[in-house]
Amino acid sequence: MRIDILTVVPELLESPFKHSILKRAQDNGVVEIHVHNIRDFSTDKHRKVDDYAFSGGAGMVMTIQPIEDAINHLKSQRDYDEVIYTSPDGEVFNQRIANQCSLYKNIIILCGHYKGVDQRVRDYLITREISIGDYVLTGGEMAAAVMVDAIVRLIPGAMSDETSALTDSFQDNLLSPPVYTRPADYKGWKVPDVLLSGNDRQVDEWKEKQAWERTKRLRPDLLEGHE
Amino acid sequence: MRIDILTVVPELLESPFKHSILKRAQDNGVVEIHVHNIRDFSTDKHRKVDDYAFSGGAGMVMTIQPIEDAINHLKSQRDYDEVIYTSPDGEVFNQRIANQCSLYKNIIILCGHYKGVDQRVRDYLITREISIGDYVLTGGEMAAAVMVDAIVRLIPGAMSDETSALTDSFQDNLLSPPVYTRPADYKGWKVPDVLLSGNDRQVDEWKEKQAWERTKRLRPDLLEGHE
Repeated sequence: MRIDILTVVPELLESPFKHSILKRAQDNGVVEIHVHNIRDFSTDKHRKVDDYAFSGGAGMVMTIQPIEDAINHLKSQRDYDEVIYTSPDGEVFNQRIANQCSLYKNIIILCGHYKGVDQRVRDYLITREISIGDYVLTGGEMAAAVMVDAIVRLIPGAMSDETSALTDSFQDNLLSPPVYTRPADYKGWKVPDVLLSGNDRQVDEWKEKQAWERTKRLRPDLLEGHE
Repeated sequence: MRIDILTVVPELLESPFKHSILKRAQDNGVVEIHVHNIRDFSTDKHRKVDDYAFSGGAGMVMTIQPIEDAINHLKSQRDYDEVIYTSPDGEVFNQRIANQCSLYKNIIILCGHYKGVDQRVRDYLITREISIGDYVLTGGEMAAAVMVDAIVRLIPGAMSDETSALTDSFQDNLLSPPVYTRPADYKGWKVPDVLLSGNDRQVDEWKEKQAWERTKRLRPDLLEGHE
């Protein structure tokens, strides 16, 4: 998979892809991640990428030209499955969409910044708008980092142990059961006896019960439609 | 406000707080952000911070000792409003929670990594669990970055123009109206006439209508309970 990220603040994305699983996934050739500075595509002599909003209002608006040129430049080199815009009014990202996106071959993610992009970019150039949640961020950069993280770890080969992703929360619409490690007794805080019993069947039953109980208590909405 | 972030991969958070509005907010003394390596608190000679899960299962679990010592160390220096754990099964973060958190004085954010922390950390040391959305990430680091971004920009003085945050999506349960900037005609893609009219009353009416129409079409759930 190849992911091209377009941003006016590429510096924000310097560290998130260079460590841990995302680094390993790139080293293993599972994914290529390219961060592009939209400013490099501006034909303005001061490399300007924003301007005042028509009709006033606070905040600057990202202009069309550098974005269109950046997207056209990438599209001239390969086909893209989607040109995604990170926006609080997009479709709300979840594990189902992450699974779906992990099957794509090439995607572009455009990060909004300032007050957002000129609406015509969204009308004519963007194929899918995604929000990572109902809150407003300084820019779409952290939203892009979150989406890339959630998507890439699902690609086979990205994680050292594939079963690890399959037992995560949401993959079966249930929250994960609680996890414990040594010591069994930490200052009087104890691990449930069943986990020390060595009885695999009882452990599995306990885990399943915990996952259901926890989901029912914390996120009953996830169980709607569940059998 | 002071934010202490505890993580086993501090490198992931090197860039997100060093640019744009979060940098300015720190430079202006609006917020202090401290990223701590949990490994520095491990009493293990190899600075170990994780161990195998009791009862097996894929993935490592973060141990109690280094986390408890890190939290106690911070608590010995000042009082904290909350010790937050970023987890997919926490309360789902939104603009209302961001507003609420922006009033805190000191918070600790513990980032889960690997398969998560030992459940006893959550039972005894954490005061609030927050999820940034219904998807699984490699770790809580990007979730912490997202929360910090959403919260800090709401603190007075963080943004150069305070009205900019007040007109964002969600602050009034409505999505923002579309924004446009020059040129008024880009290769035949045109800005709506009303925005060029110079008639402030008509422009305001248009913006309000667009915000409602857009919210009703894309996110009718936000209008529930709206008058």
